[in-house]
Amino acid sequence: MKFSRLFVPTLREDPAEAEVISHKLMVRAGLIRKLASGIYTYLPLGLRVLRKVENIIREEMNRAGAQEILMPAVQPGELWEESGRWEVYGKELLRFKDRHARDYCLAPTHEEVVTDLVRREVRSYRDMPLNFYQIQTKFRDEIRPRFGLMRGREFGMKDAYSFDADEAGAERSYHAMFEAYTRIFKRCGLDFTPVEADSGAIGGSFSHEFMVLAETGEDAIVNCPGCGYAANTEKAELTPPAEAPASRDDVRSREKVLTENMRTVEEVTAFLNVRSRDLIKTLIYQTDDGPLAVLVRGDHEVNEIKLKNILGGLKSELAGPDLIEQSTGAPVGFAGPVGLDARILADYGVKTLAQAVAGANEADYHFTNLVPERDFTVDGYYDLRVAQAGDSCPRCGAGLDIKRGIEVGHVFKLGTKYSQAMQATFLDAQGKDRLIVMGCYGIGTGRTAAAAVEQNHDDSGIIWPIPLAPFEVVVLPLQIRDEDVRRAAEDLYRALLDLGLDVLLDDRDERAGVKFKDADLIGIPLRLAVSRKTLAQNQAEFKERRENELRFFDLGQAPQKIKDIRDRLAMET
Amino acid sequence: MKFSRLFVPTLREDPAEAEVISHKLMVRAGLIRKLASGIYTYLPLGLRVLRKVENIIREEMNRAGAQEILMPAVQPGELWEESGRWEVYGKELLRFKDRHARDYCLAPTHEEVVTDLVRREVRSYRDMPLNFYQIQTKFRDEIRPRFGLMRGREFGMKDAYSFDADEAGAERSYHAMFEAYTRIFKRCGLDFTPVEADSGAIGGSFSHEFMVLAETGEDAIVNCPGCGYAANTEKAELTPPAEAPASRDDVRSREKVLTENMRTVEEVTAFLNVRSRDLIKTLIYQTDDGPLAVLVRGDHEVNEIKLKNILGGLKSELAGPDLIEQSTGAPVGFAGPVGLDARILADYGVKTLAQAVAGANEADYHFTNLVPERDFTVDGYYDLRVAQAGDSCPRCGAGLDIKRGIEVGHVFKLGTKYSQAMQATFLDAQGKDRLIVMGCYGIGTGRTAAAAVEQNHDDSGIIWPIPLAPFEVVVLPLQIRDEDVRRAAEDLYRALLDLGLDVLLDDRDERAGVKFKDADLIGIPLRLAVSRKTLAQNQAEFKERRENELRFFDLGQAPQKIKDIRDRLAMET
Repeated sequence: MKFSRLFVPTLREDPAEAEVISHKLMVRAGLIRKLASGIYTYLPLGLRVLRKVENIIREEMNRAGAQEILMPAVQPGELWEESGRWEVYGKELLRFKDRHARDYCLAPTHEEVVTDLVRREVRSYRDMPLNFYQIQTKFRDEIRPRFGLMRGREFGMKDAYSFDADEAGAERSYHAMFEAYTRIFKRCGLDFTPVEADSGAIGGSFSHEFMVLAETGEDAIVNCPGCGYAANTEKAELTPPAEAPASRDDVRSREKVLTENMRTVEEVTAFLNVRSRDLIKTLIYQTDDGPLAVLVRGDHEVNEIKLKNILGGLKSELAGPDLIEQSTGAPVGFAGPVGLDARILADYGVKTLAQAVAGANEADYHFTNLVPERDFTVDGYYDLRVAQAGDSCPRCGAGLDIKRGIEVGHVFKLGTKYSQAMQATFLDAQGKDRLIVMGCYGIGTGRTAAAAVEQNHDDSGIIWPIPLAPFEVVVLPLQIRDEDVRRAAEDLYRALLDLGLDVLLDDRDERAGVKFKDADLIGIPLRLAVSRKTLAQNQAEFKERRENELRFFDLGQAPQKIKDIRDRLAMET
Repeated sequence: MKFSRLFVPTLREDPAEAEVISHKLMVRAGLIRKLASGIYTYLPLGLRVLRKVENIIREEMNRAGAQEILMPAVQPGELWEESGRWEVYGKELLRFKDRHARDYCLAPTHEEVVTDLVRREVRSYRDMPLNFYQIQTKFRDEIRPRFGLMRGREFGMKDAYSFDADEAGAERSYHAMFEAYTRIFKRCGLDFTPVEADSGAIGGSFSHEFMVLAETGEDAIVNCPGCGYAANTEKAELTPPAEAPASRDDVRSREKVLTENMRTVEEVTAFLNVRSRDLIKTLIYQTDDGPLAVLVRGDHEVNEIKLKNILGGLKSELAGPDLIEQSTGAPVGFAGPVGLDARILADYGVKTLAQAVAGANEADYHFTNLVPERDFTVDGYYDLRVAQAGDSCPRCGAGLDIKRGIEVGHVFKLGTKYSQAMQATFLDAQGKDRLIVMGCYGIGTGRTAAAAVEQNHDDSGIIWPIPLAPFEVVVLPLQIRDEDVRRAAEDLYRALLDLGLDVLLDDRDERAGVKFKDADLIGIPLRLAVSRKTLAQNQAEFKERRENELRFFDLGQAPQKIKDIRDRLAMET
């Protein structure tokens, strides 16, 4: 492709509203343009990247035995009523009426439609396993769309749905998708990790998220360098500390100390000269059964998903200042477990404290020298906190790392949630009617492209992994009006095309600086520049986008050398 | 691909609601399933066909220099207000509000969005010509969706938009698209014709429709076997008859005859024993300027699009019985031009009548022996009727044919309609601000597949043209449980795959009859059957779907022979 025939409106300035690097760079490099909040047009270069992501996904889904179909974006409300989601799905489900005043929605996901298809066509256990996927446009009416393609309203997604006759079959389908996803993100050239995840609102019994690792990622992930255990921090299990509690027999009696206006962990620990891990944070929640206190160490954070799971159906919400004062007798910042009239749950970490500090339930006072079970009792010790770097791995006990990541894929075991609600049944080998066991599997296509940018960029722009790059090589004639330079560049361009590379020739009549800047911004992984100076040596100047080193290749050898480099880089991914 | 791993729910019965053959066969062959009125899911076989259509389109659009982008389906109402279409577009434009109560629509077409993109990015005449296309999902809330993929609500479309600095450039862009469309439908293996068309509601100055010819087509097309002139019958121009009027000097005076209860052309001409071409039909229209009479010969039909063009802005509507009686003094069926107090327009064909019959504006009476300009005068003779077989070609005078067709593509010269409304301007070489000149170009992708079925089928099912077939060849092992048969079929399957053919192996444990029926219904163009009987001769049985002849190929030669046949058939298309 010649640059002069390609619409690539690059920008020198970051768009004002862009908060994250992928959004900034994808707009600046001329890949996308915003139409409305959370709604983007893919320009030619952006679409090339999207298609590369889609093709890798398609090949691996087909290889895993999934069958591609294409389901509608506009769906009748009746099906969503059958599944029960018409009522419970929030405002993200864009509902509307057609000209005949019938209810429809713009689909955020396709469980209903695919379950309806399968219940009509599948009769027997012999018709399964089945796995249908599509690459299609979804709509979620996010309250605050942002981050460009990372959290849009209209977005591309590969969604797959598996149908099996029993749990064992569903496990196999889940495993096949897990493997396919691993191959997909590997082939995309991304550094990623699958993590155990909470299955959230889609429901189902078990799930993994595929996280592209990037410092700018929205999600925190725990990772065990020992055994490879990885989980969303929301999900990561923590075991009770193995260490025996320090001897607490000789701890002095508790003491009430004046901590005037000291409300935060930082203020109290600095004033009393204690470590934050020796302080007990006391959080008050409002529940239908009255106030609830949750205790964690000062250096820990409450994990509200774990709390929710422990409380079962009981809804809890952080209490406001009024309820705190009413429950503890003190203003915000001085709550503690001693003498507190509330149900008290404590994290395992609190149990082993020997000489702790906590609020005294009295304005401007804290207790010191607290010993759990001596100075206060709790209604139970649980895993109640967010995992941190250095925590023990629940599998092998090694110290956990924390990384940041971007969720690009999600695999769910759905079980019979939808087949039950929508009566998707089959006849088993004994002629008995049974519910189909389902799984669902999603990959955000545009999000994967954006995550690749978050993971691969520098101050000059994007650095595409070879498999996702809009072009693999760019050839830059630095003086296009010089006939020798132009001809040498075109010869190299054709030779590279003939070797099967995806090549861009920057044939614009622009200064060398502009061409270098655009090539770097767009992020083409391999660059070959031809100038009067290099031609005098019968050479061209080669540079990998990711490296600083310049190399000079003889003109005749350059194409094959670049092909070898491309092949090596593509293998490494 | 192996049939056992492919989801192809074929049906023996036509779906009850299907009215047209493509709808019936695409459902029966397991290509599509209906989700809601005018909304379909593409199953694996249907999607394979759709992708083949899309790929041909994509290659030819790229070859013509158009650039692929992807625009959103959900679009802000503001843009449609700017273009003026928010108000004038009818209920087919599905409008809704997002969670913040802002106006949006689900796009039926993308002029607004692409014009907005271009006005933001294009500054100079040097930035053009530009041509953007996309293959994307559209929504039109049709009042009565029907005919399966032929007139759906959610449907796939390739839409392209060209942007030029002047009229001459726009002409070149239009011509390039016309050529690309011609190549596309040729490569799809379709029998089609481009016809001049009325540009209708999208606006613009000039347009062609691409019609796939099929007896079941919705549209009538005139076609000149002499010079190739072709037009939508709505558009086909007719020239004044060259023949001199027959001598009318010796025609007897008009005579009023009793035609009791004779109201229709058939009744009157039979009763009076005259040809229908000698009768004058008088149609009364209601306009803001009072009643209007339109005269055409009894064997002709008024073309209301031509009438509208002649009347300019004046709106006209066929009069009801009350207005007819009020204007003519007679009930419906007895109107005529003699003594009529109304503006009278006549088709050219009326002018040359020598001895005509018309209503007498009196119940149960007609006049005979009427001579135009002797017995009545008119306000003008025009081309006012629908073209018919045998009419003279407006270009070369040869007799026109009438064919039926299905519109699958449409190219429009838009001019400055949208660039004017949305102020899409550029600086010309003199630094002057000018309006961009646009064109737009659409192909219905699913509709093209359906039109291919309308054109290519028989009582047993679909007969796909090679380029659109879901598979080019099907290999049928007729006794799958016979190890020799199974192995021979698999060997043939692999050999055909190795030759680059798109092959389906029907490895199901089904009777031969079921396999033959399904292969015919699905419409795979080339079929190779292997049985114990053919193996005894070291042969396989070959049949083209379109032919009746069976041929027997030696096993070793069959793959190459089939490849040659495929290549020949693909060349012919």
